[in-house]
Amino acid sequence: MFEARLTEGAILKKVLDSVKDLVTDANFEADPTEGFKLQAMDSSHVSLVSLKLHADGFAHYRCDRPLTMGMNLANMAKMLKCASNEDAITMKADDAGDVVAFMFESPGQEKISDFELKLMDIDSEHLGIPDTEYAVTIRMPSAEFKRICSDLATIGDTVAISVSKEGVKFSTTGDIGDANVTLRQNSEDDKEKMISIELGEPVNLTFALRYLNSFTKATPLSDQVVIRLSPQLPIVVQYVVVDVGYISYYLAPKIEDDDAM
Amino acid sequence: MFEARLTEGAILKKVLDSVKDLVTDANFEADPTEGFKLQAMDSSHVSLVSLKLHADGFAHYRCDRPLTMGMNLANMAKMLKCASNEDAITMKADDAGDVVAFMFESPGQEKISDFELKLMDIDSEHLGIPDTEYAVTIRMPSAEFKRICSDLATIGDTVAISVSKEGVKFSTTGDIGDANVTLRQNSEDDKEKMISIELGEPVNLTFALRYLNSFTKATPLSDQVVIRLSPQLPIVVQYVVVDVGYISYYLAPKIEDDDAM
Amino acid sequence: MFEARLTEGAILKKVLDSVKDLVTDANFEADPTEGFKLQAMDSSHVSLVSLKLHADGFAHYRCDRPLTMGMNLANMAKMLKCASNEDAITMKADDAGDVVAFMFESPGQEKISDFELKLMDIDSEHLGIPDTEYAVTIRMPSAEFKRICSDLATIGDTVAISVSKEGVKFSTTGDIGDANVTLRQNSEDDKEKMISIELGEPVNLTFALRYLNSFTKATPLSDQVVIRLSPQLPIVVQYVVVDVGYISYYLAPKIEDDDAM
Repeated sequence: MFEARLTEGAILKKVLDSVKDLVTDANFEADPTEGFKLQAMDSSHVSLVSLKLHADGFAHYRCDRPLTMGMNLANMAKMLKCASNEDAITMKADDAGDVVAFMFESPGQEKISDFELKLMDIDSEHLGIPDTEYAVTIRMPSAEFKRICSDLATIGDTVAISVSKEGVKFSTTGDIGDANVTLRQNSEDDKEKMISIELGEPVNLTFALRYLNSFTKATPLSDQVVIRLSPQLPIVVQYVVVDVGYISYYLAPKIEDDDAM
Repeated sequence: MFEARLTEGAILKKVLDSVKDLVTDANFEADPTEGFKLQAMDSSHVSLVSLKLHADGFAHYRCDRPLTMGMNLANMAKMLKCASNEDAITMKADDAGDVVAFMFESPGQEKISDFELKLMDIDSEHLGIPDTEYAVTIRMPSAEFKRICSDLATIGDTVAISVSKEGVKFSTTGDIGDANVTLRQNSEDDKEKMISIELGEPVNLTFALRYLNSFTKATPLSDQVVIRLSPQLPIVVQYVVVDVGYISYYLAPKIEDDDAM
Repeated sequence: MFEARLTEGAILKKVLDSVKDLVTDANFEADPTEGFKLQAMDSSHVSLVSLKLHADGFAHYRCDRPLTMGMNLANMAKMLKCASNEDAITMKADDAGDVVAFMFESPGQEKISDFELKLMDIDSEHLGIPDTEYAVTIRMPSAEFKRICSDLATIGDTVAISVSKEGVKFSTTGDIGDANVTLRQNSEDDKEKMISIELGEPVNLTFALRYLNSFTKATPLSDQVVIRLSPQLPIVVQYVVVDVGYISYYLAPKIEDDDAM
């Protein structure tokens, strides 16, 4: 049996909002030691999302044996929307059951909601993500990254991200003109403003803005986003929820644009 | 002649917002002693709404003889939308006139608006609502009732309300799964949190969520909603505006679902 | 070459929002002494908008010779939307160039955005606006004017504005009834409340509400709107940005309605 209680249920609501537009149906995995995980390609098989809530990130976590639970994420999100932001959320499933239960408890325990979602069988290959050293690691306010991706998408379809000692430059071109946004490192302690760049070698890679914009649905999860880049490798866009887990998105660069530069 | 002035004009605006989606055209009745009233079936003749603003709930009230004023509620709401929330609203009509006038006065009297709405002839039978003792009376925060109705409507079409000594349970079933929300009595003094249950006998009745959701349009009128239930009788959902009046909605239970339980 | 820097870039964003729904493509004129200007008819050639940002309203202003820059206002607005409200905005163009550049600088200079918009050739006749003495000048809160225009548009298509010593009356008639809104002069110092009327002779003129409602898109630019009226002349609706410039709209009165009164 699987049972996991998250006191700050709002985190699970936000996690769902971060993946439900990218992925339709997916297998969540509950593991006795590792925690609660999801790995899935988006429906067009271009990007990959990997999320993990650590076992010890839960107030209570019990998982007798590894369990795979196939869920329709839109339906799961519908149910989680019925939890208030202050509610604690408990997930429960039997080892051979065909439902997963969500229980929402209000802080004063006056309101208890029990929702049962039907599980589904979903084919999925497991996708190994190789552990890589990245040439560049950028940490920046997640709201700023979201703003840049959505701004540039009003001008063009792709963004070239070039990183040098001076800073990060996001560039796009469209029918109406060009746009370049440059961010410089700073030494802010304030997490909502801090911009830091670890630079092994300069990189210049181009990505589809549509997917990056989808990734920024995770912005409410964390004040900071971590972006990792290496030549020819997929970008990693990661949102860390301190002491609880993370959600990471992967997207391969556009090769043709890369050549043209 | 009829003339009635409500210092807190926002109440009349909210009252209109509470009925205009349910009822298209309706006869308002002005009565020399009783006040300003409306009783109407919704357009599909399934639910009933009854609203009353007491004569002495107005700052000024004059009604020489009973007057029936047929209005299109969408048009009336359009005009009331033009009043600011701080405005006083005065309604005026001649005994044999074909218009009703609404006057909106800003608190400083710098802005005076006069609107005249054309009256219409509307056939209507008067619907007697028998005075009944109800088995159960629930008082709860109106915002909570609204939240539950709208949450459950994302899962199913009907809600079973079952009341026992322990509390009230709202249940629904849909294609994607089941949902149960249980509220327990508390001893809060705070009207925005108080939940109280007067229980003569346990009841379990099923209602169409679509109509209950319509009723919750009255939520801005009152922090609390009063729900009355008896076996086989329509549910009463009532919003009381202290010292001014009330709006009550009636909806018959679903018999087939009732049998199935 | 032309280069102009506005420390409070939000003003340029609001200016664009004030004209982009009225005018599709237009020639901006940069003048060495006068500043940055636009004059254009709306797309149906019924109303006229004239905006001017004074040369000395900019933190920095350089314009070597008069320059005409044809822009698609929707595209220009798209780019300006990418500036944050706190950003400084600099516009730059070469004398014989085919682009205009917008640079947005965040207050801390960590984020620098460069946008280049393609210029276009636009035929335009210059429209002389005769300098006139107006019979009536009304100053009122811009939010109140916006509210009245949008309220009356829910009832009728045109508004009759009649001004006398007592105040200003806005009237409309529609299928569902009539509406009159009367404002009285006051002696408020508070700019958000002040209503003043300078009256040479009483006027009574009728205008299409659709255009007046378009003009009120400029409301965020100024707490006060100045309205000028004379018999048979177009109404002037003006929003002044103190020390920076203004935007004025002109709309001819409806002659037939005028006769009918």
